[in-house]
Amino acid sequence: MLKIVKIGGNIVEDPGKIDKFLSDFASLKGDKILVHGGGVVATDMLKKLGYEPKMHLGRRITNPATLRVVTSVYAGVINKSIVAKLQKLGVNAIGLSGADGGFILSKRRSTVPINYGLVGDPTYVDTTLTRILLDLKMTIVAAPITLENTGSGQLLNTNADTVASAIAGAMAEMGVETELIYCFEERGVLLDMGDEDSVIPSINRNSYASLKDSGAIFGGMLPKLDNAFKAIDKGVARVVICSAGSILEPGCGGTTLQ
Amino acid sequence: MLKIVKIGGNIVEDPGKIDKFLSDFASLKGDKILVHGGGVVATDMLKKLGYEPKMHLGRRITNPATLRVVTSVYAGVINKSIVAKLQKLGVNAIGLSGADGGFILSKRRSTVPINYGLVGDPTYVDTTLTRILLDLKMTIVAAPITLENTGSGQLLNTNADTVASAIAGAMAEMGVETELIYCFEERGVLLDMGDEDSVIPSINRNSYASLKDSGAIFGGMLPKLDNAFKAIDKGVARVVICSAGSILEPGCGGTTLQ
Repeated sequence: MLKIVKIGGNIVEDPGKIDKFLSDFASLKGDKILVHGGGVVATDMLKKLGYEPKMHLGRRITNPATLRVVTSVYAGVINKSIVAKLQKLGVNAIGLSGADGGFILSKRRSTVPINYGLVGDPTYVDTTLTRILLDLKMTIVAAPITLENTGSGQLLNTNADTVASAIAGAMAEMGVETELIYCFEERGVLLDMGDEDSVIPSINRNSYASLKDSGAIFGGMLPKLDNAFKAIDKGVARVVICSAGSILEPGCGGTTLQ
Repeated sequence: MLKIVKIGGNIVEDPGKIDKFLSDFASLKGDKILVHGGGVVATDMLKKLGYEPKMHLGRRITNPATLRVVTSVYAGVINKSIVAKLQKLGVNAIGLSGADGGFILSKRRSTVPINYGLVGDPTYVDTTLTRILLDLKMTIVAAPITLENTGSGQLLNTNADTVASAIAGAMAEMGVETELIYCFEERGVLLDMGDEDSVIPSINRNSYASLKDSGAIFGGMLPKLDNAFKAIDKGVARVVICSAGSILEPGCGGTTLQ
């Protein structure tokens, strides 16, 4: 079972959390790929450089100056720090952006209704390169920067959840048994946002529709679950939404989507 | 003939120069590897972030905050911008730091007589990984950040000239016919620093000794030439020192060391 694990920017800069997570990740058996965000760190760097970070519905509006900063942060310090820590743990990690080896291509977002600027959504994952690196016993650490699919040579800022979903979906379509694990702040999808023990153990399409209708699931959780079901549509065996601290627990102690 | 080409930070941020160089580089036949610096960009970023860049004999003194910035700049924005531009030119580029796949390990410098901090000199290049990527028709774009050779998981800032020399030397020792091309501001090693037409066509060990004794070669050129002769000692067929604008000319229009 190939495991694609995604971690958010909130834990990559927390020394205690990231070290525990990477140690757990290192002990996962079998083929694995790590996808990381880094929005918190990028926002901090943008502010230090005197730029005004601009977001819309949780997605960053990316002008050329912002792209330079997020590329520095995501593909630079965050990616290489994770790779170095994994090497220390005996994992032969290799950090890639979507441009490297043409790993992930993306389509620039329409400028209507919101012009996000230099932002793209994945359209292609090089599963041959992925397979070669996995066969070499290497663990890809993917940064959420991709290459525009028009041959323009333009880097595009890309949401890490969609990167993870695209990799998992592409590998599943290749016939590889694949699991996608989204790690975030909570222990799973909560029935009641105010009660951290109200983790919903499993969600399918029908219950997802009901949970949306009742208003229990809303906001930033909606695109995450949409990405999850998109991966399932492509044949991903299982998607789990859980805390970064519990990936070694059965079912990662979180919410399973099937 | 495997060509290892090194470019400095001064051209990577000059849109006209870098585009012309990459176009020339793309048209080089056969296996090739690009190593880049980025000191100028890093110094600029450090200043914008309110840090005081510290150098000694042209080498950067690197504390943990400086390392974060140089890792962001070298392995992030510079490396990925070059990779994206090469992809546009039809070169299947893959950007690597020394940590990625354990590509380049280094020994932390002695703190005596100067404590450079988190700075290392290459001790090991993974020639197997290099060979595999070359056989996949991929072009490595190497950023001058390496991984400490003690298993510490520590990234180390590394001089790009030494990275290029180490890769060329290691490949030559593997039996690969290798050429090392150092691109810099001048057309070659000059006999008279004030006369840009005074390029010395070729230098060997004997003439190098004389040129040092006479004071014609001094300062920052000395470690560059020492790196060049170190590569030759390891079996590199030829080292050329030339301008980034002339890599397609016979002998790159520069100084050949043999």
